[in-house]
Amino acid sequence: MRLLTALFTPRRVLLVGASRRPGTLGRLLTENLGVFPGELICKSSGDVLGEDCRDVDLAVLAVPSRVIPSIVDQLACKAKVIVVLSAGFAETGAAGRDLQAEVIAAARPARVIGPNCFGVQDCNALLNASIAAGLPLAGGGIALVSQAGTYAMAARAYSHDDRVRFSKVIALGNASDVSAAELMAELRTDPASTTLCFAVESLPDARAFIEQVRLTTPRKPVVVYKAGQTDAGARSAASHTGAVAAPSSMLRDALAQAGAVQVSSGEELFDAAQVFDMQRPLAGPRIGVVSNSGGAAVEMVDALAQQGLSVPVLSDPLRDRIAAQLPGFASARNPVDITPVWSQYSQLYPEIVEILAESGELDAVVVLLTHRAAGDEETVQAIASRCGMSKRPTVPIYVCTIAGRAVRATLHPLQDAGIPCFDGPTRTARALGHVYRYTQARARGITPLQPLPDPPHPRLSIDRNELAQLLTRFGISITPSRLCRSLHEVEQADVQFPAVIKIAAAEHRTELDGVRLNIKSQQELIAHAADLITRAGSDGGLLVQPQLTGVEIMVGAVRDSSLGPVVMVGLGGIWVEILNDIAFALAPIRHDDAIALISGLAGYPILSGARGTFPINLDRLASVVVQVGQLCAEYPDISTLTLNPVIVTGTDAVAVDWKSTSP
Amino acid sequence: MRLLTALFTPRRVLLVGASRRPGTLGRLLTENLGVFPGELICKSSGDVLGEDCRDVDLAVLAVPSRVIPSIVDQLACKAKVIVVLSAGFAETGAAGRDLQAEVIAAARPARVIGPNCFGVQDCNALLNASIAAGLPLAGGGIALVSQAGTYAMAARAYSHDDRVRFSKVIALGNASDVSAAELMAELRTDPASTTLCFAVESLPDARAFIEQVRLTTPRKPVVVYKAGQTDAGARSAASHTGAVAAPSSMLRDALAQAGAVQVSSGEELFDAAQVFDMQRPLAGPRIGVVSNSGGAAVEMVDALAQQGLSVPVLSDPLRDRIAAQLPGFASARNPVDITPVWSQYSQLYPEIVEILAESGELDAVVVLLTHRAAGDEETVQAIASRCGMSKRPTVPIYVCTIAGRAVRATLHPLQDAGIPCFDGPTRTARALGHVYRYTQARARGITPLQPLPDPPHPRLSIDRNELAQLLTRFGISITPSRLCRSLHEVEQADVQFPAVIKIAAAEHRTELDGVRLNIKSQQELIAHAADLITRAGSDGGLLVQPQLTGVEIMVGAVRDSSLGPVVMVGLGGIWVEILNDIAFALAPIRHDDAIALISGLAGYPILSGARGTFPINLDRLASVVVQVGQLCAEYPDISTLTLNPVIVTGTDAVAVDWKSTSP
Repeated sequence: MRLLTALFTPRRVLLVGASRRPGTLGRLLTENLGVFPGELICKSSGDVLGEDCRDVDLAVLAVPSRVIPSIVDQLACKAKVIVVLSAGFAETGAAGRDLQAEVIAAARPARVIGPNCFGVQDCNALLNASIAAGLPLAGGGIALVSQAGTYAMAARAYSHDDRVRFSKVIALGNASDVSAAELMAELRTDPASTTLCFAVESLPDARAFIEQVRLTTPRKPVVVYKAGQTDAGARSAASHTGAVAAPSSMLRDALAQAGAVQVSSGEELFDAAQVFDMQRPLAGPRIGVVSNSGGAAVEMVDALAQQGLSVPVLSDPLRDRIAAQLPGFASARNPVDITPVWSQYSQLYPEIVEILAESGELDAVVVLLTHRAAGDEETVQAIASRCGMSKRPTVPIYVCTIAGRAVRATLHPLQDAGIPCFDGPTRTARALGHVYRYTQARARGITPLQPLPDPPHPRLSIDRNELAQLLTRFGISITPSRLCRSLHEVEQADVQFPAVIKIAAAEHRTELDGVRLNIKSQQELIAHAADLITRAGSDGGLLVQPQLTGVEIMVGAVRDSSLGPVVMVGLGGIWVEILNDIAFALAPIRHDDAIALISGLAGYPILSGARGTFPINLDRLASVVVQVGQLCAEYPDISTLTLNPVIVTGTDAVAVDWKSTSP
Repeated sequence: MRLLTALFTPRRVLLVGASRRPGTLGRLLTENLGVFPGELICKSSGDVLGEDCRDVDLAVLAVPSRVIPSIVDQLACKAKVIVVLSAGFAETGAAGRDLQAEVIAAARPARVIGPNCFGVQDCNALLNASIAAGLPLAGGGIALVSQAGTYAMAARAYSHDDRVRFSKVIALGNASDVSAAELMAELRTDPASTTLCFAVESLPDARAFIEQVRLTTPRKPVVVYKAGQTDAGARSAASHTGAVAAPSSMLRDALAQAGAVQVSSGEELFDAAQVFDMQRPLAGPRIGVVSNSGGAAVEMVDALAQQGLSVPVLSDPLRDRIAAQLPGFASARNPVDITPVWSQYSQLYPEIVEILAESGELDAVVVLLTHRAAGDEETVQAIASRCGMSKRPTVPIYVCTIAGRAVRATLHPLQDAGIPCFDGPTRTARALGHVYRYTQARARGITPLQPLPDPPHPRLSIDRNELAQLLTRFGISITPSRLCRSLHEVEQADVQFPAVIKIAAAEHRTELDGVRLNIKSQQELIAHAADLITRAGSDGGLLVQPQLTGVEIMVGAVRDSSLGPVVMVGLGGIWVEILNDIAFALAPIRHDDAIALISGLAGYPILSGARGTFPINLDRLASVVVQVGQLCAEYPDISTLTLNPVIVTGTDAVAVDWKSTSP
């Protein structure tokens, strides 16, 4: 039996911790589950869980944490899924972590949701196994998986405020057993859930999550709000410096490549959910705007442009058709401004929307209603009935209001007709931007994650020379490099000029002025060598290399505890840290994905030959990225691997310096 | 008599266009002005404006545009300020522009607000000379000047929704006579207005506006919403390419330097206004957060961090004091999580807020209320009465809610007690970020704009050589440059190696591979010269220069029609366009402001010697910026002036290439 079936289509539900005392959680839960049409068994905290608790699909526990292990032990073979609402587990420290581990162990073969969670809701099945006093509106395709109770709770308020309809709400709490990734796999095939939303704080196995996102987004939009973005951002996981990379950037890039819709607040999560659930995808960037205020229309144009959407010029015939409908001072250009002709709103708005929507010149229409229009029931009703989803408009239609709070309830007919309504141009454009980018990502195609090589190579401690051999074995060109341990050895070396000499130990090399470039003669070389030995001693040795000319690129890999092997590429040299122009991808990576990764860099024009630079050999560079990722994936004992710089020319990509670290 | 006195403290008000017919604008205006406690004279459209219309302070006109000139003509010597609400002027085209000019001419000596405007409101004086059916709440210090009627109209809804109190609302409409800058000068000395908000679409004299902002921000915050940010952004005004600069970036930089609070939507404007009006400045970045939800608190930490604000670790004694108040599973760390202990909210929230606010460890406290807490009247009332402004808390206190719309009205006691309340962490943190940055800017000191040199130099057509002389006269080092018109002249030239040879005509120089660097010998030089002549012909000539080594910087100036002379500095070479790392300032500029401008570049670490680069001579570069600005200001016939690159070393800043354009 699928996890989701037991969770959301239970026949028998058991509540442990039921109570009749007003104001208690037990009383609230008893009432919430009271409306459930299936069979409900209520037990208070001290009751024996006997034979009547057999064959329970879903057990909901709201009793003090210390008694949970023994209750779970009694239920293990009686219930399929156990939802533990109680707090006092891993979130409180070491003792709580032990107690939580005890619960999971005792529960097998049953599965556990929580502990320390809000509960679960199925809006269509009238199942409210949660601490919220009521369900969101049913009948929509939005499934919300939220680690924190806040957003699960907010779903109901948002739903009733804006007539947004949900299928299921699941709170993960401490996510001790059932994970976000596992729920995504279940929801992917749930016909009732067509827009999947995830609000998560921790992702202990982010790779598994990304894997599920990549399998899901070709079929359904996945909206992700990952809290703790800046905390994680501060804990840098860069390989060679504390400043260039952070797990949050890695996760952000990996989610984008997986086609996820990424948001940065709960509000943005619900807004995206609303627009995905109510309307079909946005096929292109061309937006028509109808407004009764020129000023607000300008704000809308700005907000749309910031999302990569356009408000294009209309054709002359279309403009003439619109002008024929409008009063004297109104503007038939896009944005169409019907001006404050209050008495004509209910006729003009739907008329103009219809003309724009059916024109073939636009991919969507945004209706902007300021206070007086938004509060006019007749106008709202007219737009809802003539432009709603039941009329199958050719392109999606959205409403944006600039109006007081009291007016918002007037908009319900629009939302009930499948027209999303948002407060203000910024929120409206932000939601449209999400739909547009998702549509584009899906059109480009989203492929499953490349599998990790199996079995991994054995433990390996790698010095610089061994790493050079390994790189060569993976087909990565490295610059020939002669290690000299004395001035005498430098004198004896067979050197190709122009040459480079540098301190072999990479740490503080730049600060010690330990790299000398563009050396033209044996005499210059010896002089630099002597100076470097004075500065750094000769213990670590000096490296003599031929000087290469090309664009400096950094290629690296990092083994993240949650994402696994991650490959990165960016502009090299001093630009790495100052510009932070680095792109990440989960490794192993395919060649065409590596090319897309490089092409997405802000500095890409420099690589592609813009403005007098020469085009680099993109294929060779992409191969280095692919191979560095492969190498990191195959050698789990490499924690970080950095090639900086890789000198890329029109013909080759050659690593000039390389290093790795182990756990 | 001051403009503001006639506008807002009128004794006699005349309405032309009064009507008794329900549903008309004339009727609405008659009712709106009916509550005005002073003397009101109402005339309908056709009435004679006789002796009874003498000594009118404020005349409000709402009659068809074609009759406005004759009415204004009759009123010119009878009224001090004429507010023209009617549309049908410059916004409709050429004929309307002429009509508008006629109105302004006819009005002298009276001043005109509008036409095509919402009107004016003085909330304290009960003056509602606008098309809004009611005033915002009075008693606050917010003055709003809005070009569009939308935001003037929205002020009332926002005010009543969130108990935000206004002093004055003025809509500019076509701003044909009285400008935003003039109103700022008036409002600067208006004791009733302590937070000045401007929502503008066009700024025909942006320099005058900036000048007023610089005079005002040392005394009062000025919040600016400039619509059309991306439209303007697309119209690039760069001197040497279509991609590097745009008036919107110039205006943004100039406003920032003037200490303005810049927002990008109407909603953000009102949020900033609320937080400035209700609470004192935010002296530092340390924010304490109290929440009843761990998940929402993480979102708040993220949002604050994105604004440059911190949620610091509390001292052990402070944590102990807080822990002593909290229930078992709660967290006394910052953010403090009191957990969902519903029954204790009304006691715990104010208690913890007080402890945090008085601790001396924080600069502000944010109270996060999720649905159940925000909707609990007892809790809200307890926070309002114990932490409101009347209790003079040591640091500002703000409330953030994650709750349904219905709950918002419950918050009014907080806002009436001077505690701003915002929906969601993003909006809350955004408002705090504005207060924090304004406080910082004010602490750094904001100086008046440098005056333009007077009188300007006469017309001047400048070729490359004359420009070189001019640069030298302004103390700007330029690289010695020999213009050669044939291979023979190159051979004869006295050249210092390493040298550079390039095509003299700057257009498409890079695309033609027309710059040859690092030439070491006469032989190499001749070979390159021959090749360049093959590519480009010898008509324009070739330039031979010594090769300089240093950081490439671009310094330039642009004469903008609205901002006047603007100086710019950024990373030079190919980086200019690819990174778009350019800073602008109104010219002339002071030396220390030029240093601040350079220090603010994203690439500044490269200039200051970070990571093995060498530090450049900042003073010399700043002098070039100052002098380029001065030059542009003194020669109004220079439209653009570009020095790219200026090679900056540890000792000097030398312009290697320069060009200018004329109108």
